[in-house]
Amino acid sequence: MHLTRADIQAEERIKRLNIINSISGIKPANLVGTIDGKGQTNLAIFSSAFHLGSNPALVGMILRPDHEVRRHTWENIKETGYYTLNHVHESFIQQAHYTSAKFEKEESEFAGVGLTEQYVEGFVAPLVAESKVKMGLKFEQSVPIEMNGTIMIIGSVEHLLIPDDAVDERGHLDLSQLGGVGISGLNSYYKLEKMAKFPYARKSELPDFS
Amino acid sequence: MHLTRADIQAEERIKRLNIINSISGIKPANLVGTIDGKGQTNLAIFSSAFHLGSNPALVGMILRPDHEVRRHTWENIKETGYYTLNHVHESFIQQAHYTSAKFEKEESEFAGVGLTEQYVEGFVAPLVAESKVKMGLKFEQSVPIEMNGTIMIIGSVEHLLIPDDAVDERGHLDLSQLGGVGISGLNSYYKLEKMAKFPYARKSELPDFS
Repeated sequence: MHLTRADIQAEERIKRLNIINSISGIKPANLVGTIDGKGQTNLAIFSSAFHLGSNPALVGMILRPDHEVRRHTWENIKETGYYTLNHVHESFIQQAHYTSAKFEKEESEFAGVGLTEQYVEGFVAPLVAESKVKMGLKFEQSVPIEMNGTIMIIGSVEHLLIPDDAVDERGHLDLSQLGGVGISGLNSYYKLEKMAKFPYARKSELPDFS
Repeated sequence: MHLTRADIQAEERIKRLNIINSISGIKPANLVGTIDGKGQTNLAIFSSAFHLGSNPALVGMILRPDHEVRRHTWENIKETGYYTLNHVHESFIQQAHYTSAKFEKEESEFAGVGLTEQYVEGFVAPLVAESKVKMGLKFEQSVPIEMNGTIMIIGSVEHLLIPDDAVDERGHLDLSQLGGVGISGLNSYYKLEKMAKFPYARKSELPDFS
């Protein structure tokens, strides 16, 4: 199947949405935890988080400020300046997925889907107790993407919580062991199975590919 | 393990790099194909591509303009205005990984690792023949991220090539069937196994999570 720009544009809306949401490849499954100034918590699933830098430790995320559900996340981040990112695992993918239902602002998705708020002293935003890899982020910057009205949000890592035995001595995280998952498109969940680790690629140590 | 901002900062450089490169979760494995004005091709593995929007169809990617290897990709994109994104599959992860070795600009990574250039009529940048999901992108915009000197590159989809049987009638792509892979950190590769597909989440259809 070869689709040109015009073919893509001519596709039925939902089909286009599904195809285009899949073509960049597997996406990480994270829950973003926030709180407003009155103490009302919010939890939302995001597949758009990405690594932005390790020194300082920065995580990026794309969001649509006008999205009827994700809007609360953005409002809370602006209000308090902090948010959390929590890995989704196999054990609670359905709960994580349903945080995307349209809860009212007065209802917390934590209670709505049965996940547990966890707090770190001195940090306002709620973590997800069920998640094994989670971090508290400080909102640093938003970058408007004028082409389509989305924004990129940049956060720096204030707190990082990981099980001791999930990280090896060089700092590699084993996502299979953690029951990590990925998302394709809007609603397909994939299990991760570690298959290979290669050394830093040196030209002088190139395998024979002929 | 609970690391604060100061603990992360105090970590040994390589360990910090590995940990922080892992914490956003699984990342997609893609090869970016480019060509310069003289016809010299380049191929580079990227784990930083992300979905940016479906109407118009936009894909984002983070790169470091000063990176000794990835620099050629950016130079070529600026020179010709086009590039390709090609999914990496299980069958060629080692070849894909070694595109990150330091090849000279006069050497093509395609030949260096044994992957095959493919062209679409009227589109200048090389696709990867071995890849089953691949696209030709038009460079639209670069967004500098001043906090750490990286840039976000935005491309719009000009061509999309997918096997007919890998997409269902609603436009969902089956990444397991395609042998798709994800990356954690800098060099760990994961196989993807489809485990669940949930409907669009409606509040009125919430499962019983109690």
